[in-house]
Amino acid sequence: MFTHQQKLQYNATPEKPDADYARKLQEVIGGQYGEITVAMQYSFQAWNAHIPGKYRDLLFSTAAEEFGHVEMLATMVAQLLEKAPLGITENAIQDDPAVAAVIGGTDMQHAIVAGAGARPVDSMGNPWSGSYVTASGNLLADMTSNLNAEMQGRTQVARLYHMTDDPGIRDLLSFLLARDTMHQNQWAAAVRELQEDGLEEMPTPSNFPQSKEATEFSYTAFNFSDGQVMDRGGWASGATPDGKGTFTYQSEPMVGVPMPPPTHPDSRFYGTTELPNAVEKTAGTVQDKLNKE
Amino acid sequence: MFTHQQKLQYNATPEKPDADYARKLQEVIGGQYGEITVAMQYSFQAWNAHIPGKYRDLLFSTAAEEFGHVEMLATMVAQLLEKAPLGITENAIQDDPAVAAVIGGTDMQHAIVAGAGARPVDSMGNPWSGSYVTASGNLLADMTSNLNAEMQGRTQVARLYHMTDDPGIRDLLSFLLARDTMHQNQWAAAVRELQEDGLEEMPTPSNFPQSKEATEFSYTAFNFSDGQVMDRGGWASGATPDGKGTFTYQSEPMVGVPMPPPTHPDSRFYGTTELPNAVEKTAGTVQDKLNKE
Amino acid sequence: MFTHQQKLQYNATPEKPDADYARKLQEVIGGQYGEITVAMQYSFQAWNAHIPGKYRDLLFSTAAEEFGHVEMLATMVAQLLEKAPLGITENAIQDDPAVAAVIGGTDMQHAIVAGAGARPVDSMGNPWSGSYVTASGNLLADMTSNLNAEMQGRTQVARLYHMTDDPGIRDLLSFLLARDTMHQNQWAAAVRELQEDGLEEMPTPSNFPQSKEATEFSYTAFNFSDGQVMDRGGWASGATPDGKGTFTYQSEPMVGVPMPPPTHPDSRFYGTTELPNAVEKTAGTVQDKLNKE
Amino acid sequence: MFTHQQKLQYNATPEKPDADYARKLQEVIGGQYGEITVAMQYSFQAWNAHIPGKYRDLLFSTAAEEFGHVEMLATMVAQLLEKAPLGITENAIQDDPAVAAVIGGTDMQHAIVAGAGARPVDSMGNPWSGSYVTASGNLLADMTSNLNAEMQGRTQVARLYHMTDDPGIRDLLSFLLARDTMHQNQWAAAVRELQEDGLEEMPTPSNFPQSKEATEFSYTAFNFSDGQVMDRGGWASGATPDGKGTFTYQSEPMVGVPMPPPTHPDSRFYGTTELPNAVEKTAGTVQDKLNKE
Amino acid sequence: MFTHQQKLQYNATPEKPDADYARKLQEVIGGQYGEITVAMQYSFQAWNAHIPGKYRDLLFSTAAEEFGHVEMLATMVAQLLEKAPLGITENAIQDDPAVAAVIGGTDMQHAIVAGAGARPVDSMGNPWSGSYVTASGNLLADMTSNLNAEMQGRTQVARLYHMTDDPGIRDLLSFLLARDTMHQNQWAAAVRELQEDGLEEMPTPSNFPQSKEATEFSYTAFNFSDGQVMDRGGWASGATPDGKGTFTYQSEPMVGVPMPPPTHPDSRFYGTTELPNAVEKTAGTVQDKLNKE
Amino acid sequence: MFTHQQKLQYNATPEKPDADYARKLQEVIGGQYGEITVAMQYSFQAWNAHIPGKYRDLLFSTAAEEFGHVEMLATMVAQLLEKAPLGITENAIQDDPAVAAVIGGTDMQHAIVAGAGARPVDSMGNPWSGSYVTASGNLLADMTSNLNAEMQGRTQVARLYHMTDDPGIRDLLSFLLARDTMHQNQWAAAVRELQEDGLEEMPTPSNFPQSKEATEFSYTAFNFSDGQVMDRGGWASGATPDGKGTFTYQSEPMVGVPMPPPTHPDSRFYGTTELPNAVEKTAGTVQDKLNKE
Repeated sequence: MFTHQQKLQYNATPEKPDADYARKLQEVIGGQYGEITVAMQYSFQAWNAHIPGKYRDLLFSTAAEEFGHVEMLATMVAQLLEKAPLGITENAIQDDPAVAAVIGGTDMQHAIVAGAGARPVDSMGNPWSGSYVTASGNLLADMTSNLNAEMQGRTQVARLYHMTDDPGIRDLLSFLLARDTMHQNQWAAAVRELQEDGLEEMPTPSNFPQSKEATEFSYTAFNFSDGQVMDRGGWASGATPDGKGTFTYQSEPMVGVPMPPPTHPDSRFYGTTELPNAVEKTAGTVQDKLNKE
Repeated sequence: MFTHQQKLQYNATPEKPDADYARKLQEVIGGQYGEITVAMQYSFQAWNAHIPGKYRDLLFSTAAEEFGHVEMLATMVAQLLEKAPLGITENAIQDDPAVAAVIGGTDMQHAIVAGAGARPVDSMGNPWSGSYVTASGNLLADMTSNLNAEMQGRTQVARLYHMTDDPGIRDLLSFLLARDTMHQNQWAAAVRELQEDGLEEMPTPSNFPQSKEATEFSYTAFNFSDGQVMDRGGWASGATPDGKGTFTYQSEPMVGVPMPPPTHPDSRFYGTTELPNAVEKTAGTVQDKLNKE
Repeated sequence: MFTHQQKLQYNATPEKPDADYARKLQEVIGGQYGEITVAMQYSFQAWNAHIPGKYRDLLFSTAAEEFGHVEMLATMVAQLLEKAPLGITENAIQDDPAVAAVIGGTDMQHAIVAGAGARPVDSMGNPWSGSYVTASGNLLADMTSNLNAEMQGRTQVARLYHMTDDPGIRDLLSFLLARDTMHQNQWAAAVRELQEDGLEEMPTPSNFPQSKEATEFSYTAFNFSDGQVMDRGGWASGATPDGKGTFTYQSEPMVGVPMPPPTHPDSRFYGTTELPNAVEKTAGTVQDKLNKE
Repeated sequence: MFTHQQKLQYNATPEKPDADYARKLQEVIGGQYGEITVAMQYSFQAWNAHIPGKYRDLLFSTAAEEFGHVEMLATMVAQLLEKAPLGITENAIQDDPAVAAVIGGTDMQHAIVAGAGARPVDSMGNPWSGSYVTASGNLLADMTSNLNAEMQGRTQVARLYHMTDDPGIRDLLSFLLARDTMHQNQWAAAVRELQEDGLEEMPTPSNFPQSKEATEFSYTAFNFSDGQVMDRGGWASGATPDGKGTFTYQSEPMVGVPMPPPTHPDSRFYGTTELPNAVEKTAGTVQDKLNKE
Repeated sequence: MFTHQQKLQYNATPEKPDADYARKLQEVIGGQYGEITVAMQYSFQAWNAHIPGKYRDLLFSTAAEEFGHVEMLATMVAQLLEKAPLGITENAIQDDPAVAAVIGGTDMQHAIVAGAGARPVDSMGNPWSGSYVTASGNLLADMTSNLNAEMQGRTQVARLYHMTDDPGIRDLLSFLLARDTMHQNQWAAAVRELQEDGLEEMPTPSNFPQSKEATEFSYTAFNFSDGQVMDRGGWASGATPDGKGTFTYQSEPMVGVPMPPPTHPDSRFYGTTELPNAVEKTAGTVQDKLNKE
Repeated sequence: MFTHQQKLQYNATPEKPDADYARKLQEVIGGQYGEITVAMQYSFQAWNAHIPGKYRDLLFSTAAEEFGHVEMLATMVAQLLEKAPLGITENAIQDDPAVAAVIGGTDMQHAIVAGAGARPVDSMGNPWSGSYVTASGNLLADMTSNLNAEMQGRTQVARLYHMTDDPGIRDLLSFLLARDTMHQNQWAAAVRELQEDGLEEMPTPSNFPQSKEATEFSYTAFNFSDGQVMDRGGWASGATPDGKGTFTYQSEPMVGVPMPPPTHPDSRFYGTTELPNAVEKTAGTVQDKLNKE
């Protein structure tokens, strides 16, 4: 059950309008790694969790926090758009290349569709998609996904930080950066703890019987390209991170096996086959059958 | 530059047709974490890489390998569909509930669109999307994403393993499981090595000056839900995984700040405002302006 | 700012597993008119609102309630999947047509991707999309959209009610139906009140100067089909609902105006034009220009 | 059956080229509430209608009219692009910031893909989607959806009106505004008439037996946020618009019920559970089973 | 300008309900090569055409015809669903595996969303997308696209023909097959005539100066795979279809050129570079700059 | 099986940065007719092929070549972005309208998401979609699709050629144009050869028994619009390209047949029917049934 307070977690007020920047901020609202993604991802992970307790508590808590991040960013976007030229301007101003440049870089739907408001889309206008969410029920996989999401998210916010010098925007970003730092650390800690608690280990999923793998291929780095130094990495020799094998390196691809022959489905799929039509027409088999049906 | 050989890395021949299973396999061809995703993701990461050398060699190699995985799975799907009932069957057979059940569970487009062939879609028929790809240029973030992708992928293959008892399919899956084991280990090794090499560290991106964060929020776990044991995890106390702080825990959400007042954009956006119409009509200001324009 | 409690608004426990029904329920989680849509729609309307006060309070409140509806439904889905056959079953059972039929009707990603958990998708597996959200800043338009959303939503839930006889599911649906009844009424009341308060009226947006319309076409029903009784409706004669005109009816389409001539863009777009190539090659004009560039 | 005439319903010729505006116009061609949406929506509602007669006649007629609106707008777009700089210009001109600004704001695919022609996309380049269409078979719900569509559409056209001063464009928009006025009124009249005719009423769907609702929740406004004046609206007290109840207001969320315990699906889904791996490995139950399978 | 008649071009009445088949028919309504695609594609090609006259007349005519095909198919789908089990059935019947199998294969949204009506989606439930449309302004390219669309479409209808023995459905399909035959022939004729008229030729676009191509690569088949008989086709030797060259064959890929070195964008993008962090931290250059900013 | 070499097929180095052009190039990487499309399309056609030999060899070879084209373009994009203003610039420069114009025209995700790298999207930021791929198993249809793809692709590259004067970019484009010329010719040759080899003919699919068509409609051009010269084309008279008929022309649409009556599905779908509620309520039939259920 969610409840709402008409407060923000942190300040979200720009000093001046900036419609171009409002568009850029949409990336961290409705992009692949925006706040909607993490809010929904942590929610679904919690709802799909099979364990009560600390991990699920952490998911529920962080999910609710992230919905509040969406809110701060949407609030910021609306303010950035409030007094900005969005195509609705005096005619004289429209002829100014500087203004035209600004308008050209804006999200057209901020003006036409939302009337100077935020939208659940990314910086190129793609609507947020449920396909961005990862929630497999396997917590080691999912929290690694969360760790990645916070890394990608913080990287994007860091880039956005250098795209403005508005102190109000930077103030909000400094908060988001801090929370991303926290969340990177928390998921890293959870990933470690899941393994220490004996709940999961690598390779994930960990209780699939490895005897059923083709184990002769489990720890070998084959080189399918012609890079000359691929074997200088820790993935080419030494103990494997899962503690269950030793890396070996092979500078060539696998030998491979012959392809199975092409398939010949029912002729009523009308795929092109070797000499089907000619033969069949002569022999009157398939074509007769088709005619009769 | 890519070249192709008409061989497969491993056996990919089922014992018998199974159109339902063919649909399920589409998930690991064209799903969010299917082989197209990893092939494209590693390719774009290599093309966007800023370092020559072992990391890029590893990306190019694994990308090429994964395109070959797509090929094995597509080959398998075509064979599973080859003799399967796909709706094109004798009338008598169609009335058999067992056959009807099979057809009901198939990917309709396998038959109608592809003529008993594979498609670049997932198990629910959603086309593969470029939005599944992660390639930020930051290798610590991206290789964490790769690690997650291999974890999710191996989990899906493990589940698929239990959904069939066809020895031919299981043989192929045993190979994919092994390679996922290898790739989980290789990305885990790369994640570790990037940090050992001094190229990146946590929090990512690591050379964004942390002094610009709102550091008072960087290492505190606030509880935005009412879970009672959230503080029992390693994310609530102790040293943080990035080695730069100490976790603290607060059982309540942040105090928060007041929301800024609602925005009042140009009236020509026709949003609803406090008393706009009434007043403006009376005062003749905005409405007059609109009339005159 | 959102906070979360580990409670549900209402009971959400089925009596028995039902994977087919779990798939059906996805429609009201992640479909065009599912609970994610209304939760996000009311949130964005609130964030984009230009008026503080009762309308925005109503939006914030209902948004938070709807996130809780997503949660109840996701919780229900996970339970419906808990013990259901999802393809991972004993071999013997798999041959049972009844079981096969069930599996054929399930969401394949419930099993393969989510490990028997809920997902942000609709009943056909389409991921939820930000394009489902309407938030224009014009409250009369937007609350009419909300009224429609609750009508569509309640209709879907009513249909779903007849697709099961599980008392636990029906209990949850009886709650959702009641809340949809409430929300239909509340948005209808708000639509009425916006007009009584003098904030908006029809045609929306109401302070666009109607003098700028081509008013000769503002209240006439032209018949572009050949239906014989189109003029029997209240839209063909009598006062118009906006109180500003009188309907008239014309049994034929408009007379129309000639199409403007086809366009002739720059020849470097290589569109096909009347006799371009022949002439230009002869005359050496365009082709020469292209050659020289 | 549709037939076509090489005429337009109204003038659609701009005075001068304007590639930026052409992009903006795409919103009302191929956007969520563009003319393709209403043309397709009214068509599908007609095809899915269960009543012959005036309502279906109205749907067929308006659908055909709207296809003609798509045509007028596409014709306008082609003309706006005809002589506009679209990136294919003399080099000298390209260095002019004013021209660069124009090009920066254009739909890149207008030039590269369509060769200076219109496309079935919105102003941000998102392709039109069948998911924009609403056609439930319930006419009260659907015509409320239509009313909303015309409100959103007219709001967008009104905004677009202020984004240009080209008399030719404004002339076309004045026609579209008038037809949107008509269509708002016609759907409002139809919504009223459906109820007067006794075909539908609120809550929709109206013949679902309300006794099956959890009626104790059907007319109460719970406040899930902390807005202080939510109870000042007509949705908090008084008779409900459906004429079947009385609104009550409760300033707090529902008390709620405990969450059901987390699910424990088959271990072959490899979700993370309490202490599964440890215990199962020791006890040899699940893991043995997995090994044997 | 489009007008509508309440007639169908041809019979569209099935003998009996068949919800599974209704789902299959959606492919040719709302699929990649369904009737919506061709109706919209021919419309946009006509609107974007740069020539008045016979080609544009043909486009407008065929577009209008195809909208009527959508209508016939939607009408058929509604009838197939009219009495079919769609999950709303008596309880006893639901336990029948045969019925369950049928329901499992249906489009869930036919029942839940459309109330037993047609939808603008394909057979897997993917909404129709504007990205299916091709309209480049180059008529030789576009009419080749049309030829392909009619080939794919007729192939799909032929497959569908064998998936039912309902005489009513087959009657409608026999009409669609005939029209696809006509349309294949008409586009083939138009493709030929465009070249005979001297309007376009191969390679398309034909008045791009071929001197600007890297002509040494214009007519050589390089083998990037290891297929042994690729050179047995007419593409490996002899005159080229465009009449401007001679095919040559090379059994190996191109020699290729070295990759350019990896890029080094501004460090504020936080991509991973060779030794950036270490060095920069020591040297205090980049990091100092970042700190100061 | 694919392998990779760290070489490019051809030069791909621009003379100077150009972020706007980088965005434009995305069209031929990740657009509907970009290189990812053809690489994937030819791959799936090869995997779905039912004939070994020259046609499949050609498909495998060209697929591998096209993956290399993606690589060249991605490499080019990264270099175009390397030193370009992407929003991360000195403040002073940001105020320059010329720079602002450039930034306004860029792909925002090039900077924010990819850190100055390429992405699997088109020039408007739409992610590449598996729905762009055509692979039906019918080689005449599919290779006609390939011919179209190369025509559309070459047209786009030709347009792009005129949008830059950078010699490095033009050099790469000259290579792509040449290969598109080759591929147009090769698919045209293959289309011809498939027919000469007797494998397929028109109408496609060619061994569907034409006797099952409604042959009275197979070769007649009906005019559904009012174009006056539609009959001047080769599609209105003379022998048909498939060699099996003679075109006839009819200046009017078909006469048509009456629409079947509207459907009346189960009342539990809650669609609106003639007088359902009133009557049913009185008669107590349907409503009673609904109440009892």
